[in-house]
Amino acid sequence: MSDNRNGPVSNESEDEFKTCIRDIPDFPQEGIIFRDITNLLKNGHMFQKAVNTIAARFSQDKIEVVCSVEARGFIIGAALAHALGSGFVPMRKKGKLPWDTHQQTYELEYGQDELEIHTDAVSAGSHVLFVDDVLATGGTAKAGLDLIKKMNGKLIGAAFLIELKGLEGSKKLEGAPVYSLMHY
Amino acid sequence: MSDNRNGPVSNESEDEFKTCIRDIPDFPQEGIIFRDITNLLKNGHMFQKAVNTIAARFSQDKIEVVCSVEARGFIIGAALAHALGSGFVPMRKKGKLPWDTHQQTYELEYGQDELEIHTDAVSAGSHVLFVDDVLATGGTAKAGLDLIKKMNGKLIGAAFLIELKGLEGSKKLEGAPVYSLMHY
Repeated sequence: MSDNRNGPVSNESEDEFKTCIRDIPDFPQEGIIFRDITNLLKNGHMFQKAVNTIAARFSQDKIEVVCSVEARGFIIGAALAHALGSGFVPMRKKGKLPWDTHQQTYELEYGQDELEIHTDAVSAGSHVLFVDDVLATGGTAKAGLDLIKKMNGKLIGAAFLIELKGLEGSKKLEGAPVYSLMHY
Repeated sequence: MSDNRNGPVSNESEDEFKTCIRDIPDFPQEGIIFRDITNLLKNGHMFQKAVNTIAARFSQDKIEVVCSVEARGFIIGAALAHALGSGFVPMRKKGKLPWDTHQQTYELEYGQDELEIHTDAVSAGSHVLFVDDVLATGGTAKAGLDLIKKMNGKLIGAAFLIELKGLEGSKKLEGAPVYSLMHY
């Protein structure tokens, strides 16, 4: 990994992004502070800056597909795929993908779920970037990375808008360089 | 509307895009042929071409936000927002958005549902492009446009990857210029 990719965003930039994040107490469950990214997304200047800042970290990696989890992950992942000139692969909840799938069960911060990917979505050896909006406990991301490994994709990294450091999700993502734009 | 925006993609280009669409019979219900876009999305060249072709139609319209419906709509809408340099606004199923919302009930091809948007998502008079993956009966798109009107956004157009002509969904979208990349 290059220093450029591993280096953090400057504190100044991170603070600027954070001014666009709205804290919602007790959503979706009591005791959870939800970091609402919709005010960042709707601001054209900040949305472009966020996507392009992440894209810059992976611009030398010849990313062939960005893999993302529905639904908010699709927003960041698809914009990143456009910024990188790569393809996009959706990972979806059970029963949503119409063709043959691989499945991976995982624990959520609040519950359990199953993630699916089309069996022809990732070619062996192709350069894959996993993208989601938030890295919390890492359960969803781990399931996503497991699906990429199952298909023998070459995992280049995992990128997030927001990382909730206290939950230590990055520890679950062994061997995957993690890059997050904002940290809480 | 300019001739450029209203004009169709060339038949040659439309046929090229269509080679990437996979027909899935009886999904999600018996009797429905599902047009699976995942092979188009995963192909970097074709995904970029599809997004940039749609973006070119609206490049002169100073689009401030792209509004899209979860979950597949997020993929096309967010990539388009990046291509246009605009912001992105998610429209979601009931209970998924964390802050104050407007709601709109609508009929689906198979069932009924409710769409929500944050009450601060669209500023009065701002230029809005509505985007979804498929225009079928037009129920979802009509609900989306109603939400944009409710917020006094200036609706510039409605764009889709695929339009199922036989279902005549565009008739429901009065006053909105409709642009679709592929027609079935």
